[in-house]
Amino acid sequence: MKTPYASIEWKGDRLRLLDQRLLPREKVFLEYSNYHDVATAIRDMVVRGAPVIGATAAYGMALAALHTSATSLEEAKRELEDSARVLAASRPTAVNLFWAIERMKEKAAHSPVSSTAELAIALVDEANAIAQEDIRTNRLIGKNAQLLVPQGAKFIHHCNTGALATVDYGTALGIIRTAHELEKNIFVFVDETRPRLQGARLTAWELDQLNIPHAVIIDGASGFVMQRHQIDLVTVGCDRVAANGDTANKIGTYNLAIVAKEHRVPFYIAAPTSTIDLNIPDGKHIEIEERDGREISQFGGEQVTPEASKIYNPAFDVTPALLITAIITEAGIARPPYEESLPKMVYQAQQLHKKNSD
Amino acid sequence: MKTPYASIEWKGDRLRLLDQRLLPREKVFLEYSNYHDVATAIRDMVVRGAPVIGATAAYGMALAALHTSATSLEEAKRELEDSARVLAASRPTAVNLFWAIERMKEKAAHSPVSSTAELAIALVDEANAIAQEDIRTNRLIGKNAQLLVPQGAKFIHHCNTGALATVDYGTALGIIRTAHELEKNIFVFVDETRPRLQGARLTAWELDQLNIPHAVIIDGASGFVMQRHQIDLVTVGCDRVAANGDTANKIGTYNLAIVAKEHRVPFYIAAPTSTIDLNIPDGKHIEIEERDGREISQFGGEQVTPEASKIYNPAFDVTPALLITAIITEAGIARPPYEESLPKMVYQAQQLHKKNSD
Repeated sequence: MKTPYASIEWKGDRLRLLDQRLLPREKVFLEYSNYHDVATAIRDMVVRGAPVIGATAAYGMALAALHTSATSLEEAKRELEDSARVLAASRPTAVNLFWAIERMKEKAAHSPVSSTAELAIALVDEANAIAQEDIRTNRLIGKNAQLLVPQGAKFIHHCNTGALATVDYGTALGIIRTAHELEKNIFVFVDETRPRLQGARLTAWELDQLNIPHAVIIDGASGFVMQRHQIDLVTVGCDRVAANGDTANKIGTYNLAIVAKEHRVPFYIAAPTSTIDLNIPDGKHIEIEERDGREISQFGGEQVTPEASKIYNPAFDVTPALLITAIITEAGIARPPYEESLPKMVYQAQQLHKKNSD
Repeated sequence: MKTPYASIEWKGDRLRLLDQRLLPREKVFLEYSNYHDVATAIRDMVVRGAPVIGATAAYGMALAALHTSATSLEEAKRELEDSARVLAASRPTAVNLFWAIERMKEKAAHSPVSSTAELAIALVDEANAIAQEDIRTNRLIGKNAQLLVPQGAKFIHHCNTGALATVDYGTALGIIRTAHELEKNIFVFVDETRPRLQGARLTAWELDQLNIPHAVIIDGASGFVMQRHQIDLVTVGCDRVAANGDTANKIGTYNLAIVAKEHRVPFYIAAPTSTIDLNIPDGKHIEIEERDGREISQFGGEQVTPEASKIYNPAFDVTPALLITAIITEAGIARPPYEESLPKMVYQAQQLHKKNSD
């Protein structure tokens, strides 16, 4: 089934993004032809979700090459360095951002191009390849996970990991979508996901669009729901997975993992291998973004906390590998010990993507 | 230190309540002379918090006697039965409501009165006694708990349990307040407490009024905060404690207790003995109120979830006794096994209150 909405689309010479801040109230598309504006769009969360942030940054670099004012190839390549820096500074936690930028830099460095026009074409191609790979990856994650999804499964899901958080189809929500397409008769409890309500606003909207039965709950109700509703599994996405399996994801994920463990509910991470960062040994090395306190202190523009009250607003947390039952990638299911299984997944995924791009 | 605000006040022939739905934006007081309106005020959460709900219902019954149109004492007593029924139907989970109504009925049944005027005076006296007892109780809870509160303690607190949730001073927040008055140099992480934000709106407001250092966090951040900020203890209130120690409290409490256990952080319930229900063996027998889904689906009047999405909004959860380090009452600290310690606390508290009312 085709997704009836697209978070990201390349329009020949510019990038179109669905403004996720306005969903589900309004469906507004914004167009970008300047990498500075793309970086701002990532920072301001016009798009969010690790995989689509990666693709957006890749297109940002393609735009830098395409709309350059450089008069020589060397100058254009220097400008690319700037765009890489600006885009990389947009958000700190999701590794896909850095992964995509790195890949675009590699492409620029090693493409046999002789003009700025050729450079731009090569980079647009590479960004398109990243986007296409993301869709293939997500479909494979959805398929690979089905071994773990029983008939009639009841899920709890945190944040948004659907077509909106990716180029298409979704990661953890892709698993749910595949199960629904296989007519497994599933039900999803949707964590609203404070403070920005990606669950209540985006995941509920996607599930509604896809006719998947669901109910929205507050994040703090997951334990109560597990006590009373026989939850089969928790599925979430991720922003960065360390070599030992420690996983950074939207704030609230760690609590959910602890609560799942207490109820012996399997806790699964859906992770495109682009989110796996083998360069860091464990979660302590993941920088956690702290966002503006007004995400918590204000509701619909109205101040709800006293003006003098401090707000502490970490945007992500790190779930220790010990709490993660399995990590589902496009190359298969990684199980503990993750130090051994994750490098295998990354290697196999490289082979897979190479085969597909041949 | 006197509390610079009062949630509830008896004004001779009518009841004055601070409308907590408008805090911290506006400080509006509402006056009541009719028990039907008092029941509506409880249901609509003009007042909330188990202890103050009990006192409010007691004054509701006093109002029923005071403003009766009955022409005989017998008729007035029958009308009291009606008011007891109406007030008891306002909210189902907090036991203090039923406890206070029962106590008022006892008073009506056993007071040697010979006119409706004398009945009314007896009931106003009893409601005043309940209110005064609540304040004494809370100060004792605050004092009894100090054994468990180290110098420089960092707390996590859920919902609101302060002077607003009680007649004065507070239960779990009373512990925090006492520690602050003893200059223990404390810091409080305040769970915002979705969906109605009693933490962000009310607890932060009280802490600000009392100059107690604090920061508001989302409920889902408690695990992250425990990982990184060496939390010393979690203190929460309760709406009903079963004979085995299972405790109903605001939704999200159970998750917080599980997360505290995972981090070996002591988890304390502050419980006036009026909240202990020895008539039910365990938490399975506590009715959990399910509230209107719009508490979750709407933010400041604006719909945030798709219209078609179901909302599941249980207002309370039950934390199993196993996760509770201790239950702090006005008579002392109850430790497991609670089947043994709780009846002792209830008995000792009765002696204590009898002595005080002599």
